[in-house]
Amino acid sequence: MVRVTIWNEYRHEREDDEVAAIYPDGIHATLAGVFEGNHEVETATLDEPEHGLTEEVLERTDVLVWWGHEAHDEVDDEIVDRVQERVLEGMGLLVLHSAHFSKIFKRLMGTTCNLQWREDGGTERLWVVDPGHPIADGLDESIELPETEMYGEPFDVPEPDRLVFTSWFEGGEVFRSGCCYQRGNGRIFYFRPGHETFPIYENDEIRRVLRNAVEWATPTEGAPRTFGERE
Amino acid sequence: MVRVTIWNEYRHEREDDEVAAIYPDGIHATLAGVFEGNHEVETATLDEPEHGLTEEVLERTDVLVWWGHEAHDEVDDEIVDRVQERVLEGMGLLVLHSAHFSKIFKRLMGTTCNLQWREDGGTERLWVVDPGHPIADGLDESIELPETEMYGEPFDVPEPDRLVFTSWFEGGEVFRSGCCYQRGNGRIFYFRPGHETFPIYENDEIRRVLRNAVEWATPTEGAPRTFGERE
Amino acid sequence: MVRVTIWNEYRHEREDDEVAAIYPDGIHATLAGVFEGNHEVETATLDEPEHGLTEEVLERTDVLVWWGHEAHDEVDDEIVDRVQERVLEGMGLLVLHSAHFSKIFKRLMGTTCNLQWREDGGTERLWVVDPGHPIADGLDESIELPETEMYGEPFDVPEPDRLVFTSWFEGGEVFRSGCCYQRGNGRIFYFRPGHETFPIYENDEIRRVLRNAVEWATPTEGAPRTFGERE
Amino acid sequence: MVRVTIWNEYRHEREDDEVAAIYPDGIHATLAGVFEGNHEVETATLDEPEHGLTEEVLERTDVLVWWGHEAHDEVDDEIVDRVQERVLEGMGLLVLHSAHFSKIFKRLMGTTCNLQWREDGGTERLWVVDPGHPIADGLDESIELPETEMYGEPFDVPEPDRLVFTSWFEGGEVFRSGCCYQRGNGRIFYFRPGHETFPIYENDEIRRVLRNAVEWATPTEGAPRTFGERE
Repeated sequence: MVRVTIWNEYRHEREDDEVAAIYPDGIHATLAGVFEGNHEVETATLDEPEHGLTEEVLERTDVLVWWGHEAHDEVDDEIVDRVQERVLEGMGLLVLHSAHFSKIFKRLMGTTCNLQWREDGGTERLWVVDPGHPIADGLDESIELPETEMYGEPFDVPEPDRLVFTSWFEGGEVFRSGCCYQRGNGRIFYFRPGHETFPIYENDEIRRVLRNAVEWATPTEGAPRTFGERE
Repeated sequence: MVRVTIWNEYRHEREDDEVAAIYPDGIHATLAGVFEGNHEVETATLDEPEHGLTEEVLERTDVLVWWGHEAHDEVDDEIVDRVQERVLEGMGLLVLHSAHFSKIFKRLMGTTCNLQWREDGGTERLWVVDPGHPIADGLDESIELPETEMYGEPFDVPEPDRLVFTSWFEGGEVFRSGCCYQRGNGRIFYFRPGHETFPIYENDEIRRVLRNAVEWATPTEGAPRTFGERE
Repeated sequence: MVRVTIWNEYRHEREDDEVAAIYPDGIHATLAGVFEGNHEVETATLDEPEHGLTEEVLERTDVLVWWGHEAHDEVDDEIVDRVQERVLEGMGLLVLHSAHFSKIFKRLMGTTCNLQWREDGGTERLWVVDPGHPIADGLDESIELPETEMYGEPFDVPEPDRLVFTSWFEGGEVFRSGCCYQRGNGRIFYFRPGHETFPIYENDEIRRVLRNAVEWATPTEGAPRTFGERE
Repeated sequence: MVRVTIWNEYRHEREDDEVAAIYPDGIHATLAGVFEGNHEVETATLDEPEHGLTEEVLERTDVLVWWGHEAHDEVDDEIVDRVQERVLEGMGLLVLHSAHFSKIFKRLMGTTCNLQWREDGGTERLWVVDPGHPIADGLDESIELPETEMYGEPFDVPEPDRLVFTSWFEGGEVFRSGCCYQRGNGRIFYFRPGHETFPIYENDEIRRVLRNAVEWATPTEGAPRTFGERE
């Protein structure tokens, strides 16, 4: 069974009633529910020791799911180093929504990961632009979300290895919403949907994408990564 | 001076009064006007001998601009072979709008180049998703076209080497509107805007993109393409 | 079970005693042996009606393996159309060695697929340059083949989506020996090793790569490829 | 005129007689000589205040060339931040040889940038694998260096946007020796050749590559990089 660790900042849910109403046990609990049954799931949050990401936790994680927003700077650089090292060794990483600005994503991309945004609750339609990609398995041609925060281009990331989704926003913007990268042996998927004040992670199609993405990002055996001096 | 050859099917303009009103001398004449002054420009059309694309014409062409729509099948396979060979040697190629279905583009892509479409005259906004790309030089963050034909994803082309524009359409669709490819030594740019019943090629920003794209696609010196048996 | 169809030109083995000694039942029989047990395997050859690639055969094929050399031109264009269509729908395709010059590979790439070569029986070492790729699963850092035909750069193909192997040749050349592409929904892997006068396909590591590549190229469910006019 | 700043660690040349014999005025002086005449050239070294890379210097630099080896860790993180920011804004960056392990390259790549190596003085042959790329302008099919340090795969970098050179080494290894990346608006070229104990930067073809690479990496005008909240 694939071992998934959900990491959540877990601040909005404890500070803001509106968010607590949607995610009463935290976004991590809702995300954990996406994977339970077919995966070994555990959760970790910012305010735990080592942010819940001890060496042991990361060692037994196949795919790490990351949600953060208001407290990116509180994530310790040593833990970022540790997560980066595990990704390069092969651990998968799903980066959700406002985690575009997380230290770990910026570290792995090498860019600012900046974008345009507007919290207007307008409609978003995610178009599948790579219908053959396993992350699109079982979807229709697009996913419609009636109320979302807008993210718009330019999105300051490296050109994705593969672009799976592009979003259309009612207000007139577009965004590369599903971006695949490989760094070292690790597969990374940035997926835009998901805001603390809209129940995005209850949507069945979004949940399907998350499961597909975890399957895609699960490490395979690979060949040796041998570095250093040769005889 | 860069030598640009404009190829146009030149049928709609002679058959349809609405089109003739917008492009009285043919789309090729309007496109030629984009480049005159700073480029050596010539034009070629379907009904000329060898479609105007003799070996001599292609030999002296740095960048070929291609517009076609209703008569793709009438283009002779031998001429397609000839154009493909020149592109692989280094000649640049701009493929405009409905030329996504031209034989030469399908030949170079290896896919169907199919898409979704609707001739509704709605608004299109082309977002620059790669602001550092030379084809985006001097543009704003987006180009707005008040009335266009819609093209929607999926667009059955190989993942572009670089994606410069993504279009937003009023009706709810998105499209990868500016796609860069290299095949052999030749640089290829697919650019979506441009319909026979809307005066797209009179738009200053679109004209700027066309000039930028020709500059980008102009062949450089390169290194030898040596093939065959080695000693 | 994944359904694999091996296509072989099957001429050298019937015309040349040296080749017949290595591949007495044809290269297709040896390749079929790579997959038997865990796959449904069938074979098809040039001189069968429709080259053995009827609509029914292709319809039930998950991954097609292609070996050809001296008779590429005898492959009927209609069959090439049929194979291309199936690849774009999602069928995987493995293109082996001298099949770089097959009609189907050139069709899907859009380039000449030309290269340099020398039949010198020197050593080849295939380095894994993407150790996290599933096609490299279980390999060492490189595969050594004591006697091969040399293929050298430049290799006139589009930049691969991912490059898995690069070959070193005793005579001083290098070659991109394992190239991944996606075209439409289909995954394509070009793999260099394999000559009719060297028993390459008996090598255990090469056989492992072939099995890994078939697994990688097996179609997944995907999302709809809907084209045409929208309401 | 393109403004080039050469950054050199400048330690080996002051500490080691063998290196001083080859580069008596420092590697930066030799590299400056590659560009003098057609470029505005200045140099900067590790032991200057702010490593010679003040805001003013970076502001007026079009392309920064970076050579470092034994003292990567002494480069201040604030200066790395500053260089990264300028690259993302559009400044070009050439990363030479052992600078694969520089902080700035690791920062921009997001990976370890590790590799295999052996200081054996064997022959290297750099094959042009992308003969249409402007960095290959005017070269032959390969460049031969009689004595070099070996670098071998795997090279832990993201898949290059374009791969221009692949090296063959006498000892049996291969390496992706010329790798193009874009990050933000900046163009980055990693170029392998160049060791402190071999006079690589005196080689005419290597010097040609350096000039081509600077031309390729020179910033173009671009479009706005507008981020943040939209109305």
